[in-house]
Amino acid sequence: MEQIAYVNGEYVPLSEAKVSVLDRGFLFADGIYEVAAVLDGKLIDNESHLARLERSVGEIKLRLPESLARIQEIQKELVKRNNVENGLVYLEVTRGADTGRDFAFPKNDVKPTLIMFTSVKDIVNAASAKSGINVITVPDIRWSRRDIKSVALLAQVLAKQAAAEAGAGEAWMIEDGKVTEGGSSSCFILTQDDVIVTRQNGSEILPGCTRKAVVKLAEERQLRVEERAFSVDEALAAKEAFITSASLFVQAVVSIDGKKVADGKPGPMTNRLREIYVDFARATAV
Amino acid sequence: MEQIAYVNGEYVPLSEAKVSVLDRGFLFADGIYEVAAVLDGKLIDNESHLARLERSVGEIKLRLPESLARIQEIQKELVKRNNVENGLVYLEVTRGADTGRDFAFPKNDVKPTLIMFTSVKDIVNAASAKSGINVITVPDIRWSRRDIKSVALLAQVLAKQAAAEAGAGEAWMIEDGKVTEGGSSSCFILTQDDVIVTRQNGSEILPGCTRKAVVKLAEERQLRVEERAFSVDEALAAKEAFITSASLFVQAVVSIDGKKVADGKPGPMTNRLREIYVDFARATAV
Repeated sequence: MEQIAYVNGEYVPLSEAKVSVLDRGFLFADGIYEVAAVLDGKLIDNESHLARLERSVGEIKLRLPESLARIQEIQKELVKRNNVENGLVYLEVTRGADTGRDFAFPKNDVKPTLIMFTSVKDIVNAASAKSGINVITVPDIRWSRRDIKSVALLAQVLAKQAAAEAGAGEAWMIEDGKVTEGGSSSCFILTQDDVIVTRQNGSEILPGCTRKAVVKLAEERQLRVEERAFSVDEALAAKEAFITSASLFVQAVVSIDGKKVADGKPGPMTNRLREIYVDFARATAV
Repeated sequence: MEQIAYVNGEYVPLSEAKVSVLDRGFLFADGIYEVAAVLDGKLIDNESHLARLERSVGEIKLRLPESLARIQEIQKELVKRNNVENGLVYLEVTRGADTGRDFAFPKNDVKPTLIMFTSVKDIVNAASAKSGINVITVPDIRWSRRDIKSVALLAQVLAKQAAAEAGAGEAWMIEDGKVTEGGSSSCFILTQDDVIVTRQNGSEILPGCTRKAVVKLAEERQLRVEERAFSVDEALAAKEAFITSASLFVQAVVSIDGKKVADGKPGPMTNRLREIYVDFARATAV
């Protein structure tokens, strides 16, 4: 059965889910997106994703065409219609399609575009969750407002394509000798003295929802967490390294640019945080 | 009569010109664009625009779905179908729509998307060509591959919106104390000793087609041209300042952040270069 997508108020087959060539998402990357994971048919940590959506659209003065409550209803309806047990819901809101192309915001009252679609993915049992992933490093060439979750993702596309070509699962982006974040994930290390380190939020990185949850869950368990930038050398000298994202949860990084992290296997802290996160995800899913 | 657009091989009414929500232009800003001016029904300096298109797609390893010769045929067909005497042809090529959303390039043979549409605009007789424009300055927050004419334009959207809100016609972007370029134009000054100065090409700016033509035309007329970065203070101390773009040709900048450039009126060199460019445009249009 063909998947159903949501486009501006309508539920349509994915093959008919289209936007105008004048849509500002298509012409200018003038849009914001979110990806929420689905586990056992329920949305994971969605409040956090919707809060971030609201923040991002606010930063670019883009009005949401629906309330957050209504957006969650649509997400759930789409999960139901597509019988998604495990997978993802992608949503994007753009500044809509005006009658022509002009960089400045539309002068007329153009309705923002809201689209959503789902995909099926066995997140919990992903092979890479057990094996860990290899990462490569690339220079971070992105703009300076990375805290905005915009669809202007070409730099990330190129970074993740470079990773794919190198047989790696993620690209860590480097700026001024420090790791900013992954192409679509937050980066963590566990130091030799058992401190969990992840870069502090700011305009240099996206405030990861899964990152935020993992930090909170770790702190609740009296684990030591430091929010600061770290270098690749520190990561290679660490006990463990891992990434977090909405679609990967917590995954071990077992090598960086071909060099092993510790013994090149997922470590116990990474596995523990993954279990803690999956428990949290199941317990709080809606 | 409704305008006709081109979408992947078909000529369709603009209201039906759509792309999939899975199009990588819409999801990732994974696409390149060009805008060519139309004067008296003919394309201006199009060879230069198509050469830049070919360069940009090459930089992101995106395959053009049609030859440059065929693209020009489509541009001309669209100009004809829409009876465009004076205006613009917009074209965008993206890495197409895969069956799902994955940052890395599609593994399957996904056909790139090619769309075009036109707009009517009296470029030669624009009011701002006579009055000149006011500009504001904003920090240049873009990524570091500005030589690629990608649709990841959110920073430019925000810059040009700030200009519009300030009643200005363009935003000059500033980095390390120097002007990089305008939100959608190249920047020039004429110094007190009659040197035309414009920033040298590199990854910091887009290699402007109109900029290139104007530099060549000026040099052919034994005018002194220097390609180097300049500051706003230098611009305010200059005899004249102006911008170039495909859709504006050459336009005087009469104030920067509310401060007059010279006497606050378009200067003779700007007017001369505009005339020279319009003559060149008419003589070489196809």
